[in-house]
Amino acid sequence: MTGALRDNGVDFIELGGVQPNPTLSFVRKGIEMVRAYNADLVLAVGGGSAIDSAKAIAVGAKNDGDIWRFFMKEDSPIDALPMATILTLSATGSEMSSSAVITNETLNLKRGYNSRFHRPLFSILNPELTYTLPPYQTACGIVDIMMHTIERYMTFPGEAELTDRIAEQLLKTVIAAGKTAMRDPNDYDARANLMWAGSLSHNDLTGCGRDFFMASHQIEHEVSGMFPEVAHGAGLAVIFPKWARYVLPSNIARTAQYAVRVWNCEMNFARPERTALEGIERTEEYFKSIGMPSTLGEFGITADAIPEMARKCTNYGKRTLPGVVTLDEKEIAEILTMCL
Amino acid sequence: MTGALRDNGVDFIELGGVQPNPTLSFVRKGIEMVRAYNADLVLAVGGGSAIDSAKAIAVGAKNDGDIWRFFMKEDSPIDALPMATILTLSATGSEMSSSAVITNETLNLKRGYNSRFHRPLFSILNPELTYTLPPYQTACGIVDIMMHTIERYMTFPGEAELTDRIAEQLLKTVIAAGKTAMRDPNDYDARANLMWAGSLSHNDLTGCGRDFFMASHQIEHEVSGMFPEVAHGAGLAVIFPKWARYVLPSNIARTAQYAVRVWNCEMNFARPERTALEGIERTEEYFKSIGMPSTLGEFGITADAIPEMARKCTNYGKRTLPGVVTLDEKEIAEILTMCL
Repeated sequence: MTGALRDNGVDFIELGGVQPNPTLSFVRKGIEMVRAYNADLVLAVGGGSAIDSAKAIAVGAKNDGDIWRFFMKEDSPIDALPMATILTLSATGSEMSSSAVITNETLNLKRGYNSRFHRPLFSILNPELTYTLPPYQTACGIVDIMMHTIERYMTFPGEAELTDRIAEQLLKTVIAAGKTAMRDPNDYDARANLMWAGSLSHNDLTGCGRDFFMASHQIEHEVSGMFPEVAHGAGLAVIFPKWARYVLPSNIARTAQYAVRVWNCEMNFARPERTALEGIERTEEYFKSIGMPSTLGEFGITADAIPEMARKCTNYGKRTLPGVVTLDEKEIAEILTMCL
Repeated sequence: MTGALRDNGVDFIELGGVQPNPTLSFVRKGIEMVRAYNADLVLAVGGGSAIDSAKAIAVGAKNDGDIWRFFMKEDSPIDALPMATILTLSATGSEMSSSAVITNETLNLKRGYNSRFHRPLFSILNPELTYTLPPYQTACGIVDIMMHTIERYMTFPGEAELTDRIAEQLLKTVIAAGKTAMRDPNDYDARANLMWAGSLSHNDLTGCGRDFFMASHQIEHEVSGMFPEVAHGAGLAVIFPKWARYVLPSNIARTAQYAVRVWNCEMNFARPERTALEGIERTEEYFKSIGMPSTLGEFGITADAIPEMARKCTNYGKRTLPGVVTLDEKEIAEILTMCL
């Protein structure tokens, strides 16, 4: 990589050492470096952590004051350096998305926001770069990709038929390609389908014409914000099925459609809630089959951590999570309790 | 429209009178106007003819010399004015595509080329603007949308599973929404699904990872280039099923997949060519059901026009049409003869 830049006469400085759940202090360091170097472009080489850090650095380079205020949605950036990506991990879709998520390690808060300045100028997607990923990271990526589409899908019913159909087939593709990639990490087609699905899953294509709010993602951010050893995808694998059961009485038709069209469940017209539940169970089984956890207990997380996570998730009483069921502190705590 | 521009203090000049199969002379007039006015942006209000004209005008404003050379692929543009669209017709997908097609009425040649300068800066898609379209134009649009995806789909087999699945569901959506829009022109959801499908059908999403060459489109350009009374979609409705039958012996697996996944045909595993043929027949029946022609004879076109169309389609012996079967003058003439 750096050799290719050098060979082509491109001057650059490097910032290595990004970690999962990338931190605000890392971003601040990058902003200082980019300003001092007077960079024209920020290039992320890696997965979501590298890309989200690069997005925050690119914004920070062109906005005075504390970058964290944007993540708290107290202010919006006015400009940014262009940023681009060379993707090495299929998961977050950050290579094509408008979102960036950073963890403030002083406040133990993981927060993200969307901005047009977060859209990469270009992204280079080479599936072969993902061959060497450990199975666990591959699986976490599969869950993250699926969840970006599922969360857009599991909102209020609507008539965005094309969006629904694209979402359903993206999920079917990921389910099949995911299995193949877990079995044969060097299967080019499976890796390519996962990589492209990752980008399409979070670039808003699968949400066009639909409501957008990611309840499971928001709850998961509290878990991995407080317990950084929880990979984002693994956290989602635990939380989504519990969320789906919790809201099911308000979400039967949509969940049944998901069960029938994505998991090929037979529709029970007399008792559609049974079909819907089957769809949730199939999802759980799939996540388990690729090595994902199904409880927070597997990470040693116990009930005493729940009140703080639930409180934080409402920004200390300043918001509820919208969706088919509006979630306040009490409901979030109940869902987290189901996850134990 | 012009009222909204005036109310917001936007200065503009207007060029009206674009026609189906938009002409080079119209484009040249626009280029002169735009240069004299020193415009910052070209805004197309209309369907593919208005948009393609605007694209050519935006390019012509920033390139000296004859604009037609780009359409003959003898040279590439170096710059262009930004252009944008307000779409009033779901059909060509030009509102999101890199292509533009213009007819040189002196040479009786209809030619298009792709360029990044042809991508609109923005497009405003309001399905309600398409309520008042005559049924025939709605139907022509439906065929054009379907064909942009079908031509990308009906190429060599490959493992771009996500692309295949998106293409198939886009077609299913258009088939259903098309029927609804023909029955109830004011059905918002049907019009919205058609409009969005039109954009996705030609923005390269449904071709990602696949070969790209549009044989039916190329042949149709000769028909409507020589007989401008043939609407592009109507010409495609005649030509595609004949092309598909002509190349079927070399394209059985792919056409059978199309039949099963798009038209819900039952797979005949012993004789897949029967399933494939059923898919072509279902397509023909659908086109007929929305009022499309099935022969060129319906336009009074007779066998004596075929040699010239076939010759022109090879750029007078300078090219063949690639695809699952390479088409030279002889093969193109045979397909056109099937269309009579």
